[in-house]
Amino acid sequence: MAKFIGCDSSYDDSKLVIFGAPFDGTTSYRPGARFAPAAMRGESYGIETYSPYQNMDLLDLKIYDDGDLDLPFGNSARVVEMVRDKVSGILADDKLPIMLGGEHLVSLGAIQAAHEKYSDLQIVHFDAHADLRGDYLGETLSHATVMRRAWEIVGDGRIHQYGIRSGDRDEFSFAGQHTIMQRFGITDIFKLQTKAPVYLTIDLDVLDPSCFPGTGTPEAGGISFGRLLEAIFYASGFNIVGMDLVELAPTLDNSGISTSLACKLLREVLLAISN
Amino acid sequence: MAKFIGCDSSYDDSKLVIFGAPFDGTTSYRPGARFAPAAMRGESYGIETYSPYQNMDLLDLKIYDDGDLDLPFGNSARVVEMVRDKVSGILADDKLPIMLGGEHLVSLGAIQAAHEKYSDLQIVHFDAHADLRGDYLGETLSHATVMRRAWEIVGDGRIHQYGIRSGDRDEFSFAGQHTIMQRFGITDIFKLQTKAPVYLTIDLDVLDPSCFPGTGTPEAGGISFGRLLEAIFYASGFNIVGMDLVELAPTLDNSGISTSLACKLLREVLLAISN
Amino acid sequence: MAKFIGCDSSYDDSKLVIFGAPFDGTTSYRPGARFAPAAMRGESYGIETYSPYQNMDLLDLKIYDDGDLDLPFGNSARVVEMVRDKVSGILADDKLPIMLGGEHLVSLGAIQAAHEKYSDLQIVHFDAHADLRGDYLGETLSHATVMRRAWEIVGDGRIHQYGIRSGDRDEFSFAGQHTIMQRFGITDIFKLQTKAPVYLTIDLDVLDPSCFPGTGTPEAGGISFGRLLEAIFYASGFNIVGMDLVELAPTLDNSGISTSLACKLLREVLLAISN
Amino acid sequence: MAKFIGCDSSYDDSKLVIFGAPFDGTTSYRPGARFAPAAMRGESYGIETYSPYQNMDLLDLKIYDDGDLDLPFGNSARVVEMVRDKVSGILADDKLPIMLGGEHLVSLGAIQAAHEKYSDLQIVHFDAHADLRGDYLGETLSHATVMRRAWEIVGDGRIHQYGIRSGDRDEFSFAGQHTIMQRFGITDIFKLQTKAPVYLTIDLDVLDPSCFPGTGTPEAGGISFGRLLEAIFYASGFNIVGMDLVELAPTLDNSGISTSLACKLLREVLLAISN
Amino acid sequence: MAKFIGCDSSYDDSKLVIFGAPFDGTTSYRPGARFAPAAMRGESYGIETYSPYQNMDLLDLKIYDDGDLDLPFGNSARVVEMVRDKVSGILADDKLPIMLGGEHLVSLGAIQAAHEKYSDLQIVHFDAHADLRGDYLGETLSHATVMRRAWEIVGDGRIHQYGIRSGDRDEFSFAGQHTIMQRFGITDIFKLQTKAPVYLTIDLDVLDPSCFPGTGTPEAGGISFGRLLEAIFYASGFNIVGMDLVELAPTLDNSGISTSLACKLLREVLLAISN
Amino acid sequence: MAKFIGCDSSYDDSKLVIFGAPFDGTTSYRPGARFAPAAMRGESYGIETYSPYQNMDLLDLKIYDDGDLDLPFGNSARVVEMVRDKVSGILADDKLPIMLGGEHLVSLGAIQAAHEKYSDLQIVHFDAHADLRGDYLGETLSHATVMRRAWEIVGDGRIHQYGIRSGDRDEFSFAGQHTIMQRFGITDIFKLQTKAPVYLTIDLDVLDPSCFPGTGTPEAGGISFGRLLEAIFYASGFNIVGMDLVELAPTLDNSGISTSLACKLLREVLLAISN
Repeated sequence: MAKFIGCDSSYDDSKLVIFGAPFDGTTSYRPGARFAPAAMRGESYGIETYSPYQNMDLLDLKIYDDGDLDLPFGNSARVVEMVRDKVSGILADDKLPIMLGGEHLVSLGAIQAAHEKYSDLQIVHFDAHADLRGDYLGETLSHATVMRRAWEIVGDGRIHQYGIRSGDRDEFSFAGQHTIMQRFGITDIFKLQTKAPVYLTIDLDVLDPSCFPGTGTPEAGGISFGRLLEAIFYASGFNIVGMDLVELAPTLDNSGISTSLACKLLREVLLAISN
Repeated sequence: MAKFIGCDSSYDDSKLVIFGAPFDGTTSYRPGARFAPAAMRGESYGIETYSPYQNMDLLDLKIYDDGDLDLPFGNSARVVEMVRDKVSGILADDKLPIMLGGEHLVSLGAIQAAHEKYSDLQIVHFDAHADLRGDYLGETLSHATVMRRAWEIVGDGRIHQYGIRSGDRDEFSFAGQHTIMQRFGITDIFKLQTKAPVYLTIDLDVLDPSCFPGTGTPEAGGISFGRLLEAIFYASGFNIVGMDLVELAPTLDNSGISTSLACKLLREVLLAISN
Repeated sequence: MAKFIGCDSSYDDSKLVIFGAPFDGTTSYRPGARFAPAAMRGESYGIETYSPYQNMDLLDLKIYDDGDLDLPFGNSARVVEMVRDKVSGILADDKLPIMLGGEHLVSLGAIQAAHEKYSDLQIVHFDAHADLRGDYLGETLSHATVMRRAWEIVGDGRIHQYGIRSGDRDEFSFAGQHTIMQRFGITDIFKLQTKAPVYLTIDLDVLDPSCFPGTGTPEAGGISFGRLLEAIFYASGFNIVGMDLVELAPTLDNSGISTSLACKLLREVLLAISN
Repeated sequence: MAKFIGCDSSYDDSKLVIFGAPFDGTTSYRPGARFAPAAMRGESYGIETYSPYQNMDLLDLKIYDDGDLDLPFGNSARVVEMVRDKVSGILADDKLPIMLGGEHLVSLGAIQAAHEKYSDLQIVHFDAHADLRGDYLGETLSHATVMRRAWEIVGDGRIHQYGIRSGDRDEFSFAGQHTIMQRFGITDIFKLQTKAPVYLTIDLDVLDPSCFPGTGTPEAGGISFGRLLEAIFYASGFNIVGMDLVELAPTLDNSGISTSLACKLLREVLLAISN
Repeated sequence: MAKFIGCDSSYDDSKLVIFGAPFDGTTSYRPGARFAPAAMRGESYGIETYSPYQNMDLLDLKIYDDGDLDLPFGNSARVVEMVRDKVSGILADDKLPIMLGGEHLVSLGAIQAAHEKYSDLQIVHFDAHADLRGDYLGETLSHATVMRRAWEIVGDGRIHQYGIRSGDRDEFSFAGQHTIMQRFGITDIFKLQTKAPVYLTIDLDVLDPSCFPGTGTPEAGGISFGRLLEAIFYASGFNIVGMDLVELAPTLDNSGISTSLACKLLREVLLAISN
Repeated sequence: MAKFIGCDSSYDDSKLVIFGAPFDGTTSYRPGARFAPAAMRGESYGIETYSPYQNMDLLDLKIYDDGDLDLPFGNSARVVEMVRDKVSGILADDKLPIMLGGEHLVSLGAIQAAHEKYSDLQIVHFDAHADLRGDYLGETLSHATVMRRAWEIVGDGRIHQYGIRSGDRDEFSFAGQHTIMQRFGITDIFKLQTKAPVYLTIDLDVLDPSCFPGTGTPEAGGISFGRLLEAIFYASGFNIVGMDLVELAPTLDNSGISTSLACKLLREVLLAISN
């Protein structure tokens, strides 16, 4: 397996550990997020390791790319479990896990693991969709329920949701009572002050489909790349203990601009949280 | 034929009636608008029925989706006639027709029918192109002439055009004398005050090609989805007696973001004009 | 939901019942078979109801198209169960179920149901892949294990496999002892004589990828459409009690020739087994 | 407008005259044949002018490529008329017209012109579809009716149809009485002996979709390129007075093999009929 | 070879001379820029000759489209030489050369020729990438080194770079000492005042990938079409002696919006600099 | 870099050494062969390591996959040199080099190296194109000249060409005097008896475009996969000292059947020549 560009340090030397969770088994609409980690690694050689935004270079950091989990298709519960075990292991070694989805359900395992270590965990969540359903077609483990399951773990007022512009009435109603949600935009994050351990989950469909068409359920009216970048730079000041980038579906975008953007965003995230 | 999501009430119960006009026979450049109604119905199950923008739900409305007209290819005059007859029937039943094109020529039949019922009809027209040619390669019935034909029906000062950024010199000159046109932007609509019956025709290529690449003649420099949404919310305060969404060509956009946007826009339009 | 062309009789009137099983949750490689039933219905209007091969017309038959099962993603066991229940119901009404996959795992539910009714059931299986693994990445329910699971139901010498040209060493070894397999070609079927009730399962990747590129795991060196047609005409002389067409993945073939072929094949199958 | 490779002689010097008829206005299913002439000219530079099949070279011939007719969309009658006038002009100059469609309706104008000059005209027709409907959705001018209209011109027993594998029951019945049709294959052409003037119309969908996916209504079970080439070499011994290649839809085949094949076939046809 | 729309005057009559340099031989990532000139000419017939932005029409100008250079693949030095000779010839005739790339390396030949005539040449450079490497994988002639080579010709402080958002650390460091670079945005150009002869080179990937996905190395976070248009209108006030548009790769964008935008931009540029 | 499936032995242990030559710099028509080695490695996990054709398994062999050469674009001479050095090194270690192109020019370096070691080298060449030009647009190093350059090395009667169906008149004439060429088919190989060291070069466009659309210059009328497989099995009886698979261009075939076929063919070749 190729490494993400500039991420070829050893596990022992590295504070940051990347791994892929190539699963899209509960995707109800258009699958393909399973191909994201491999596509990002391959296309990462089309970007530079240096960031003019931060005047930093991946080559100056120690990052380990651990490849992909070998996830079973058709068994969502086992997938969540395998992610949880992986993240627990990385956290136990006092490293920072950076998971490349896959669909959003994989975040659940990571959040479970992070909460086991940090009982006061908070979640910062960028997404177009609320993901707060109780169940989806009878299934409780789904990309559409992942934040509801996360809420069952971390409790009221611990999930900060930004950019949300789609969901059913019940989800928005639930959010009104149990999470902290900004609809449509993400500017409220610049007001967030917290010392708590934070798990950062970025569903890339928070972006406008114009700059990120390669995702299973594109939702018009999203935010720009520049705005998301600012938000991530701000969020890098939090005490981030784990994070993920999910829902890139590279084969849905022949032009390749979605994968290219995701690679650039990962570079900026890695540089920002390494400080 | 599948129904558009949340639009499965009976004809008798419904105030709003959707139908498709899958015709692109005069498209001079890249055809494909014929596939729009079917694509929109199929893909509508990827969006929600609930709108967080308006806090309303399609499931609370009565809307009938009448399927598609069975239009003959190669006979534009007959197509216009069939659309006119269809819209006349819906208007005669005191319902509001919502046509899914197809190319822009289909609007002509709907405008004819609306004008027969409402002699003081005005037209609100979103588009990248003026569509004001006298003829196109010798043909008077064409997507490129439809607003000229409409002007022959409603007369001077009754057609309000927004977002226009393409046409030949004569079209812009004609507009200067006979229609009310805003070039490039659409903000003038927020100044429009009218009590007249309004036919609303939305050529989706008024949007910037970045968020709506799936159309036959994309024209750089368009407006954003958010801006169009605001304009439509404003326009929903008019006395709208009929409307259409035209020029989605789904097969020209493999990523599917154009069809997805069109579905979301239709949801918002349906909710807005139902008030 | 649109009906497959010419299949709009009522359930009660019909001997043949079509339904879709749009599931691809265990697909390990390239998903997309979930879109097959909808694509086939939509594209069926591009073929004729009349067959010059058989001088018969779908319009002369009574066939009911029951639409698609609403299958949960991420829970393979439940999917198999729902298929089994559906097929049991159809068989209980003395009708012949014709399932449109989806991936090959869905056949398992249908075979379970058919075996419950017909304890001497035999299986005629066209495929490029043996599908005889004991498990796949630890999962026992998978497109790659479906014929192994079927063997556990029907026993030795009851599964007739044709066109197989891929599998691991153990699968071919297993086949040598427990199934009747022709490698590469399918001509042995013309020697098969049986009065037993037969479940016919057609994995369309038995075809050469040149004429059927739209499938998740294309395997070079397959058979031609004409040859498969002959085999199906011959097999229609068996006592077929249920059947399926699986593994069309329409979005993997932009040209549309795979979906078009599948529609034509279904027409021929329906006409052939109706006799 | 670029010329087809090797076809840049002057009109006066040339015996063979190529022109394009980029019309697909009656295409009921998937349009795109309008793009064929331009695509063929552009891609012709990917093939050689020399044929190892015939040991001849386009560079040794005099061929004029007249570019495309400027056909109006949405007016089929006028399109047929313009084609007829064009072909009449070429025939009046004692040259051989070679038309690049476009959809099959354009052949009607050419047949009209050829029959005006040669009252004993016969038609050799390669196609997957019978094209013998009386009307199509009420329209008499359509790609699906073109051979019926041609029969009205040339009469019984003058149309020789090869490779036909699709049509409704009435079309096959009509053929039984009025045309000479070989179903499925094309080998009967090798028995055809005629001294009559022949118009040769090649609907490229007679080919198997595996080697020619880029066409509006692909029909499985067609003939191979090699077989069609043999048939054309044989047919070049007839007294051919005009011909066409129709129904390439290049944008439906991203791989480009359909356009490439069409270019090679045109080269071979030009060389064969120049003798 | 077709002409760009409205550019069919004779060489002698024309002040502006367009030619294509269809080369992408040093493209390290995704090739395809070679197809740009032909694609732009073909698609130019989908835009108008009239500009509502400038109230001018290409039909009122004299522009010559000279077709494409016949460039050898695999020999970059010879390609640069052929471009230089071509541009020298146009400049010697006191005409203004407008080159359509091709990849960015082709600009080098044009800059050499322009500097030979104008020793005080300055360069205005729009791009996402700095293109200032000393060499690329050991090669000194590359799309990634072109501005470094240009600097060797024109010297310090003569290259004005806008929109740059990618490069390695050394390139940005080099720029700090030798060129005038604005990172990320392009607004500084509105402050530039110069009477010097200017060569304008527009790498279209300066645009945001949302509106211009069809390019080899898309780089998120670019500028909008409207902003680039303003900059070009401003720059047209300079003493422009030559220019190019490079790095459109049309086949990477199936939707065609990139080629369409490039055509519209070229129209506006031609109109603007003709004054 | 991922390894080709089942090829993860160490260099020292392995008799067979795979490496990639991802170069397409002289491709005159449609580039993309550069992506072949990476695509083959990635997609190889969709095929099995076991061959039912040969009852052998890659897992029983020792094969080393050395990754890709880092070739400079725009300098063909240096590319050939680097390939030659690589192959020389492998041959010096008494191993068998298996090169994955890239375009056909890369074979030249390998042939140079093989001839240096084996002065009586013969070449077995499968291709649609003769590749015997003296130069191509003035360049002597080109995919279109590679066999001419090879002939300059090995001399008359040493190059055995099969499947050739395209070239200019001079190339066929040259072949008549200097090489042993079978036009169109490849069956003559079954008559070839030789004890000489053989370099085997397989341009995959020898296959029919129906089963292998993903190549730069598809040429209708090719051979089937099954036939090529037989030829390769036969050729594996020769004294093969080196070989290559060239001209897969994976991005030109969205369906993926070309890459899949190439992977399967490589598996069969590896198994066959390992004996």
